[in-house]
Amino acid sequence: MAFPKKVTIREVGPREGMQIEKTPVSTEDKIRLVDLLSECNFPVIEVTSFVSPKWVPQMADAELIAEGFKRNPGTEYQCIYLNSKGIERAKATGKFDLEGVLSIIASETFSRKNTNRSIEETFDEMDERIAVLRNFDIPISTIAVMTAFGCNYEGNVDPQHVVRLISRTIEKANAHGIDPDRILLGDTVGWANPVSTEYLVGQVQERWPDKTIILHLHDTRGMGMANAYVGLKMGVTHFDSSVGGLGGCPFGGSQGAAGNIATEDLVHMCHELGIETGIDLEKLLGVTREAERILGRELPSKVGKARSLASYRQIPSH
Amino acid sequence: MAFPKKVTIREVGPREGMQIEKTPVSTEDKIRLVDLLSECNFPVIEVTSFVSPKWVPQMADAELIAEGFKRNPGTEYQCIYLNSKGIERAKATGKFDLEGVLSIIASETFSRKNTNRSIEETFDEMDERIAVLRNFDIPISTIAVMTAFGCNYEGNVDPQHVVRLISRTIEKANAHGIDPDRILLGDTVGWANPVSTEYLVGQVQERWPDKTIILHLHDTRGMGMANAYVGLKMGVTHFDSSVGGLGGCPFGGSQGAAGNIATEDLVHMCHELGIETGIDLEKLLGVTREAERILGRELPSKVGKARSLASYRQIPSH
Repeated sequence: MAFPKKVTIREVGPREGMQIEKTPVSTEDKIRLVDLLSECNFPVIEVTSFVSPKWVPQMADAELIAEGFKRNPGTEYQCIYLNSKGIERAKATGKFDLEGVLSIIASETFSRKNTNRSIEETFDEMDERIAVLRNFDIPISTIAVMTAFGCNYEGNVDPQHVVRLISRTIEKANAHGIDPDRILLGDTVGWANPVSTEYLVGQVQERWPDKTIILHLHDTRGMGMANAYVGLKMGVTHFDSSVGGLGGCPFGGSQGAAGNIATEDLVHMCHELGIETGIDLEKLLGVTREAERILGRELPSKVGKARSLASYRQIPSH
Repeated sequence: MAFPKKVTIREVGPREGMQIEKTPVSTEDKIRLVDLLSECNFPVIEVTSFVSPKWVPQMADAELIAEGFKRNPGTEYQCIYLNSKGIERAKATGKFDLEGVLSIIASETFSRKNTNRSIEETFDEMDERIAVLRNFDIPISTIAVMTAFGCNYEGNVDPQHVVRLISRTIEKANAHGIDPDRILLGDTVGWANPVSTEYLVGQVQERWPDKTIILHLHDTRGMGMANAYVGLKMGVTHFDSSVGGLGGCPFGGSQGAAGNIATEDLVHMCHELGIETGIDLEKLLGVTREAERILGRELPSKVGKARSLASYRQIPSH
């Protein structure tokens, strides 16, 4: 398959990145980060999580962040919520483009440890989840499979198992007269490699040719960009990434490991391959520096340290 | 093309990595690094450079390193030298498997700035180079093209220009009755992307199907592993890399940028793809930690921070 002409990159750094930071980040800095990202012209930014501060204390200021950031008319602003309470909180701010996601964790152990539910229990609760989302008039657009490639507890995940989980979720949705048009494949703890990415993406494309695949890749073992390349080569048009490669894995013994693939590295690769992103890369490199200042540490992105190739092409030989 | 069954990874960290370190590294630590790498069963290790300490003061202790490290019978030990004096110094140690390399820098500006010679002057001196190598009985095995994909001074390098440089070098060698069987394509300052890698490798394979390609990739802009993947997919069997991703680019305004692709990330990807390397990855991760201790800073490799997937597969679910 050919490269897409244009891809949609969702910036998840403010949410997924900040969620695991040990250094306390001020609400003001979090707002500043979202505003700076907005100036780069992202199509989608995931801003924060409306979850219990008991579980994720870093996100206790979700309402303040929501109140503080400036909406850019070209950007969709998303947030995470787990239940009615979260939706009510997010809705009350009036700042978000709420999206309904039906999530499944492909690894039984990971599911139990991180959501306190088995896979079957997740399916059991899905009707209620759908009802709640519909009750709030939130369009159910996406099916998300986490640990879709493997997990530190259970090892490799069977791609056929993932396909079955997606299939069952679609059936559940269809029973409510809904047909989510996006499938997110999440390599939550960095188990994907280029071959397994190609295989799973291929299976999903073959089975559901009309649905949009979103690749949510982590660079835990250095294969994130190679996996993204394989996705691009297969025509995948939607990717998640975080500025600077913010984040990391708080789960399952990978503390200190790399987070999402770095947005600027992904944007840069797309531009080098002639794929549009609509994102202002040079501005984004400024955001990386600001994120490093805020967190007081170097972030793992590469283009952030090396300048873009485009910037070299603009200067005459010397 | 299919993946190779086995690849040969040359560890260049002790030479290319150390060469640009600002922190002084003791001779003892340099020797220790080589010895630890030897224990990982590398097929080839590039140990040091016999060049003038005036140009590369970090390598002034080349003789002491040579004297100090222990040869592992399964490993080939290489070093860099620029002239007869360097060869004599390297030979005198009796510790190296000297290899003759005919080097060309594809970017005219980079060539002038870094070797003080134009491309034409490099060709002019090649007969003498060949004569010197033959005089010392050093087998001329490799043609190396640096900045084969692009350079910060001149931007993208035309792949046809690279093919012509290789062709001219082969003609020069042939005129001396020599036919080097390896072609090294060096992405010296990180300009390659997966498409340009595929294109240049394809051109060289088509033109010289019987020669072995060595990919020397840098991860300056985060595409190094994607480029390596493309090389593997095309059947490339020889790669250079550095433990921890040691090194970086001392040239042309990319100070602070990433160095070679990290050996452990490359080895890990190969193993995940079912490609043998013969290298003991778990031991290598110990060497990364030791290299970080020696340099007093975190190195950019990813597997170094996250453990290998193989190590997770060995523990039962918990």
